[in-house]
Amino acid sequence: MRHLLTLDGMPRATVVELLDRAQHFADLRGDVDALKGIAACTLFFEPSTRTRMSFQLAAMRLGAHVLNFDVSTSSARKGETALDTMRNLEAMGVRGFIVRHHDDGAVAQLAAAAGEGTALLNAGDGRSNHPTQGLLDMLTLRQAKGDDFARMRIAIVGDVKHSRVARSDLHALRALGATDIRVCGPAALLPEAATLAGCRVTHDLDEAIDGADAVITLRLQRERMEDGLVESLDGYHRDYGITEARLRSAAPGALVMHPGPINRGVEITDEVADGPRSLILRQVANGVAVRMAVLERLLAARG
Amino acid sequence: MRHLLTLDGMPRATVVELLDRAQHFADLRGDVDALKGIAACTLFFEPSTRTRMSFQLAAMRLGAHVLNFDVSTSSARKGETALDTMRNLEAMGVRGFIVRHHDDGAVAQLAAAAGEGTALLNAGDGRSNHPTQGLLDMLTLRQAKGDDFARMRIAIVGDVKHSRVARSDLHALRALGATDIRVCGPAALLPEAATLAGCRVTHDLDEAIDGADAVITLRLQRERMEDGLVESLDGYHRDYGITEARLRSAAPGALVMHPGPINRGVEITDEVADGPRSLILRQVANGVAVRMAVLERLLAARG
Amino acid sequence: MRHLLTLDGMPRATVVELLDRAQHFADLRGDVDALKGIAACTLFFEPSTRTRMSFQLAAMRLGAHVLNFDVSTSSARKGETALDTMRNLEAMGVRGFIVRHHDDGAVAQLAAAAGEGTALLNAGDGRSNHPTQGLLDMLTLRQAKGDDFARMRIAIVGDVKHSRVARSDLHALRALGATDIRVCGPAALLPEAATLAGCRVTHDLDEAIDGADAVITLRLQRERMEDGLVESLDGYHRDYGITEARLRSAAPGALVMHPGPINRGVEITDEVADGPRSLILRQVANGVAVRMAVLERLLAARG
Repeated sequence: MRHLLTLDGMPRATVVELLDRAQHFADLRGDVDALKGIAACTLFFEPSTRTRMSFQLAAMRLGAHVLNFDVSTSSARKGETALDTMRNLEAMGVRGFIVRHHDDGAVAQLAAAAGEGTALLNAGDGRSNHPTQGLLDMLTLRQAKGDDFARMRIAIVGDVKHSRVARSDLHALRALGATDIRVCGPAALLPEAATLAGCRVTHDLDEAIDGADAVITLRLQRERMEDGLVESLDGYHRDYGITEARLRSAAPGALVMHPGPINRGVEITDEVADGPRSLILRQVANGVAVRMAVLERLLAARG
Repeated sequence: MRHLLTLDGMPRATVVELLDRAQHFADLRGDVDALKGIAACTLFFEPSTRTRMSFQLAAMRLGAHVLNFDVSTSSARKGETALDTMRNLEAMGVRGFIVRHHDDGAVAQLAAAAGEGTALLNAGDGRSNHPTQGLLDMLTLRQAKGDDFARMRIAIVGDVKHSRVARSDLHALRALGATDIRVCGPAALLPEAATLAGCRVTHDLDEAIDGADAVITLRLQRERMEDGLVESLDGYHRDYGITEARLRSAAPGALVMHPGPINRGVEITDEVADGPRSLILRQVANGVAVRMAVLERLLAARG
Repeated sequence: MRHLLTLDGMPRATVVELLDRAQHFADLRGDVDALKGIAACTLFFEPSTRTRMSFQLAAMRLGAHVLNFDVSTSSARKGETALDTMRNLEAMGVRGFIVRHHDDGAVAQLAAAAGEGTALLNAGDGRSNHPTQGLLDMLTLRQAKGDDFARMRIAIVGDVKHSRVARSDLHALRALGATDIRVCGPAALLPEAATLAGCRVTHDLDEAIDGADAVITLRLQRERMEDGLVESLDGYHRDYGITEARLRSAAPGALVMHPGPINRGVEITDEVADGPRSLILRQVANGVAVRMAVLERLLAARG
C-alpha cells in the first residue's frame, strides 16, 4: 500500500489490519514515535478545519512534523499548479500529503505524479472518495455491533448522490462482507446504479429503517435547495430526517451515525444526535485513531 | 480548580499559588514536560494573534500538542454551533480549550457543557473576564512593588466600562487585599457601581494619579469615537492620556502598565510607553509564564 | 554574525562555512536538537506560503518552537507598528525572527531596534535582499558545478530590476569569486549600474547564454505587463524565455535555475523546467538545508 486513495477494491484483510491497528491506537490514547523526523503536510484545496485538525492531531501523536497548506487562502494559489505545489513540498522533504480537493480524481492524479518516496492520503475528493471516513465508520460499527458485517443491516440515508462519505462507506461495507445495505433518499439525491450495486434502494425512509441495526445519515448541503434538488429543509426533514419516532421500527438498540457537521433539525433531531443511539462523537474520536493507523502504515518506512 | 473562567471570588491562596508557579516559570525560561502528550486547542471566536501566540508558546513550552482553531475564519463556522465545535474537538482528544469569545458569559456556558475530562481557560469573554491578564498584571505588580498589596495605591484609567482587563484586575486586586484602588475615566466609559465596589471613582486624572504607585491604563477602542462615547482622540488624550507631566504627582518610582496593543499618543505617550516607568513589555513576558502556570494546573492531571 | 540581513559584503569564508554546514544538513536528512527550547517566529508582512514553510520546516528539524505570524491577515495589523509587534514577541521569549517585508530596508530597520538577545533573518525585503535564496543558489551551483566559481560562467536572465533574488545572487557570486556573470533582460527590467558592477550586461539572450554553465532565470511578475514594462507575455517569452533551442549555445551540460514559483511558458518552457537541465527542485531542497544552517548559526547560542 503506497497511497490511500480509495477503499474501492481494498482487500478485506487490509481493511481489517487497518481497523485493528486503529483500535490499538484508540485504546492507547497516547503518543508514539513511529513518524519521528518525518514531515507530513495537509494540502487542502477545499477548506475543512475539522478534518484537517483530526489528521494534524493524528500526525502529531505519531511524532511527525506537520505543515498545513491551506491552498484556498494561500498566496501559492497564484499561478502555481497543484502539481508544482506538491513537487515543491516534496523537494523540501515532505513525505506524506493529506489532500482534500473539490474535483473527483484530483488526488489520484497528484498521486500518479508524485515522487517515489511520497505517499498521498485522500482526505476527500469531489463526491468520489473519503477513505478515512469509510474506515472510521467501520471501526465505529465494529465497536458497537461486532465484526459480523454479513449479518448487519445498515441504512444509508440522505444525499447519497453527492456524498463521498456514502461511497467510501459502501466500498468498506462490501469489503467487510455486508450484504444487507439499504440506501434511501429522494430520487434527485440518489446516484447512478453502479454506485448502488448490491444495495436495496428506496425512497421510503420507513422501509430503509425497518429492522436496521445502524442508520448512517448524511449531511445535506444547503445549496441543494438552491439547486432545486430539495424543495425545502422542512420537507426534507419530514421525509428523511432521523427522529426517535422513525427509529421505532429499527432493530432493538439501533444506532445512528453522521459524518458531521450536522444540520440540527434537518438530517437529524437534537434528541437523536445527542441521545444514547448516537455514535457521532465516537466517530470523531475514531477518526484520529484511524488516521494514525493509515499515516503510520503509509509513512513509517519513509524516514 | 477545573476551569479558569474568572478571578471573581478566587481565594487569595489560589491566586498566590498561581503567581508563585508563574514566577518559577519566569525564572526558568526553559521547557518542561508537564503536558507531554496532552492536546490543547485555542478556540478564538474573536481574533487576537498576540494573545493566541502567548498561550500557544506557553503550551508548547509545557510539551503539549497545540491546535489553533480560528473560528472567525474557519469553515466550521458554517452551520455548526460553538458547542458542537467544542464537542468534536473533545472527541478528538483535546483536553484543554483556550477560548476567546465576544459575548459575556459565552466561555462559562461552554464550560458548563464540557465533558468531565475537559478544562476551559477563558482567554477573554465580552467585557467580563480576562483572568490570565489579571494574573499577569498582579505578577508584574508584585515583581515591581512587592507583595504588600494592602499598601499599594493603584490607578486604573480609561475605558473601564468595556474592559474585561479592568474587571479581572479588580477581582485580582481585591483577592490580594488591595484597598486603595482609584478608577478613572470619562463618565460614559465608567461601568455600573457594582463593578467598582470599594474603589475610589473619579473623572479627574490628576486625582487618580496623585500618590499612585502604579497606573494601569487601558486600551481605547477607536470605535468608541464612532459610538459617540468619546468626542475626539485628541480630547481623550488631553484628559486621560498618560504623560510624564501627569505622572509628576504620582508616588516616586510610579510605574505604568497597559494590556496592549497600545494606541500611541492616545492612551499613552511614546515617552512613557518606552520609558523607564513602563512595565508594558514585562507584562507581555509575564503573560507566557502565567499561562504556563494555569495550563499546567488545569491540564497536568488530564493525560 | 548576529543577524542575516544581506549577503552584500559577507566574507567569502563566512559564505563557505554556511554552505558547508548546509551541505552537512542536506546529507543528514534528519533532525537535530540544536535549537531545542528556542522559539522562532516567522513574521511575514508580505505573504509567501512556500518560503514560510521552508523556514518552518528548517526550524522544526532543529527542534525549535515555531510560531507563524502572518501580518497580512492578522488582527495585530490594526494600529500596531511592526516594531511593537516584534517587541511584543521578543518579550514573549521569541529569539529569532524570520521576516519578509515589501519595503526595502524594513528588515534592517527592525534589526536595528531589536533587543540584544534577538536575531533577525531577512526572508526577503522589497527588491533588495533575499540572502537565504542567494545561499541556496550557491549551494546548488556548487553541488552541480564544483566550487571553482572563478571559472564559472553564469547568466542571470529576466526582471533583474525588481529582483531581490538577483541581487542576493550577485552578492554571493562576487563573494565566492565569480568573474564571468552575464546579466540579461529588457532595458526596462535592468537595474541601475551599481547593482551590475562587474557584470556583462546585455539585452540579447543568445549573447548571455553563449557558453554559460548555468542560467538563473527570474520570476516575471505579471503586474509588469500592466505597468507597461513588458509589452506582452508572449513577446517576453520569445525574447527572454528559456527554451531547449536557446540553450544549444550554452556550455555542454549547462543547467537552469529559477527561484519559483515559475510561470510555465513565460520565463521557461515545461521542457526545460521539468527536464534534465533543471535544478529547480534541487534549489527548493537546498533551501531547507541552508535555512537550517543559518538558523543554527544565529540562534544556537541564544537559549
